[in-house]
Amino acid sequence: MSVDRLIEMVGEKKNPTVLGLDPYPDHIPPAVTEKHTEKHGQTLKALQRAYKEYILALIDALYDIVPAVKLQSACYEALGPGGMEVLRQGILAARNRGLYVIVDAKRGDIGSTSKAYSSAFLGRVALGDTLLPVYDADAMTVNPYLGSDNLIPFLKDCEAYDKMVFVLCKTSNRSSAEVQELMAGDRPLYRVIAEQVSRSGRHLVGKYGYQNAAIVAGATQPTAIRQLRKDHPELFFLVPGYGTQGGKAADIAFAFDKQGRGAVVNNSRGICCAWQEDESVPYTDAARKAAVDMRDDLRKAIVW
Amino acid sequence: MSVDRLIEMVGEKKNPTVLGLDPYPDHIPPAVTEKHTEKHGQTLKALQRAYKEYILALIDALYDIVPAVKLQSACYEALGPGGMEVLRQGILAARNRGLYVIVDAKRGDIGSTSKAYSSAFLGRVALGDTLLPVYDADAMTVNPYLGSDNLIPFLKDCEAYDKMVFVLCKTSNRSSAEVQELMAGDRPLYRVIAEQVSRSGRHLVGKYGYQNAAIVAGATQPTAIRQLRKDHPELFFLVPGYGTQGGKAADIAFAFDKQGRGAVVNNSRGICCAWQEDESVPYTDAARKAAVDMRDDLRKAIVW
Repeated sequence: MSVDRLIEMVGEKKNPTVLGLDPYPDHIPPAVTEKHTEKHGQTLKALQRAYKEYILALIDALYDIVPAVKLQSACYEALGPGGMEVLRQGILAARNRGLYVIVDAKRGDIGSTSKAYSSAFLGRVALGDTLLPVYDADAMTVNPYLGSDNLIPFLKDCEAYDKMVFVLCKTSNRSSAEVQELMAGDRPLYRVIAEQVSRSGRHLVGKYGYQNAAIVAGATQPTAIRQLRKDHPELFFLVPGYGTQGGKAADIAFAFDKQGRGAVVNNSRGICCAWQEDESVPYTDAARKAAVDMRDDLRKAIVW
Repeated sequence: MSVDRLIEMVGEKKNPTVLGLDPYPDHIPPAVTEKHTEKHGQTLKALQRAYKEYILALIDALYDIVPAVKLQSACYEALGPGGMEVLRQGILAARNRGLYVIVDAKRGDIGSTSKAYSSAFLGRVALGDTLLPVYDADAMTVNPYLGSDNLIPFLKDCEAYDKMVFVLCKTSNRSSAEVQELMAGDRPLYRVIAEQVSRSGRHLVGKYGYQNAAIVAGATQPTAIRQLRKDHPELFFLVPGYGTQGGKAADIAFAFDKQGRGAVVNNSRGICCAWQEDESVPYTDAARKAAVDMRDDLRKAIVW
């Protein structure tokens, strides 16, 4: 099971960190961007080349420390079709380095359309008898607003190709409460969503008791994390929001069970932009140091 | 204002139909696909070429009947980076034919990420002092689950570049009630979302009283459409679900005001796959006939 593989990869490195590869133009060291703008001018192509160099270098620098990467689809989409090619190459490079690959696409649509999204990121596209892989990640994030007929095509691909989905439950952003904490009966909406995910994914449980149908629960929401862990020992968590967004290891610790399992913790800017603290250090060295610091910080807070 | 332009384009053609360009492999007439698989084999490239030929032919065949197109991002994403290039070319072709272009991407994320999505589909990507357009559509669909800091970057681009967003409110799929009709206090969630959209978009009102911040309300949900129209005379509606999904003109009529304004109605399969009813007719002719029938059906139900 995909979730078992992720749990074991976390265990091997004794590190639940997910390296967030979410490049923005101002995240790239100026020397990298300049090299490409000199050749291609102030163009999308120059940015595509800069993003590619940057994320491949970060994967090469960190693959022995972190077990997983999460690529934020928006950053690549923003560069047009050529940006999606960089996403594809990033996924491939990470997989070749033995990393677990999550695409953070937060897709959600009516059933037939979700099927198309799922075939892009997790499954296969059918052309006659041929099944064609496209991005072929290990997992992706999904938005719950359209209900179960959105979720089903993703779960079918989870089953057919042994993949995972992380359904948005309680997100790390400030305004998440405006919708996610609306009271639906006696419970905030995010708890209803978690219940729906749990129910839909019951047939996808791995040997450690966690499901391939998992949830997103933000590090900035410690109360929600505790509640969700209490409600659902069977749900694995993707926890964004550590570091720059304010989430702390002590808060995140509640996401884990007594064996140190049950969650992975994403950090993007805190690792990838560490070079901005001291520009004399190569950005890959700065990222490595930040990733080691984060790992050690989490190790202290989580019981292994 | 973008919404005024859309209203006037609907008025000129006396037709609120949006042509949904949502290609799936089995939507393409076999002769079109075979032409490209003969050249490129059973590959994504063959499908990309087939999709491109198909949507450009449909745009050319229908641009004098319909005022707008909606391209379903998922269908193009499913074909990888080359699929996104087809999406880009479809947007361009539709714009060159004088059509209003909606990208149905249903994106939603934390603020900084939404900004990247918005810059891809509506705004510009900044590289130093240069602002680069990417897909540059007139409007896109947005998912509300992450709250207002998701919505704000899209609204900023609506203001800066005169664009529209359609926020998912009540969708046309069967399971939409599972989340969207949960009671949040005394009202179903979808009414709370509509209220949030209305409030956030107050500064973006055009001369007909409608906002550039608009909503999606499915044709299969007549009760919701009536309620939302009553609650929010200032919200313009994108109404999916006519035809194949079961929505009828009489139900959709409630989305419109007494001047015949206030909504556009999407149809994808009902128009684009009309060729499947009678394969002896060229697919563009079949689509033209279906589009004329839909227009006439809507004209009967809506007061102009």
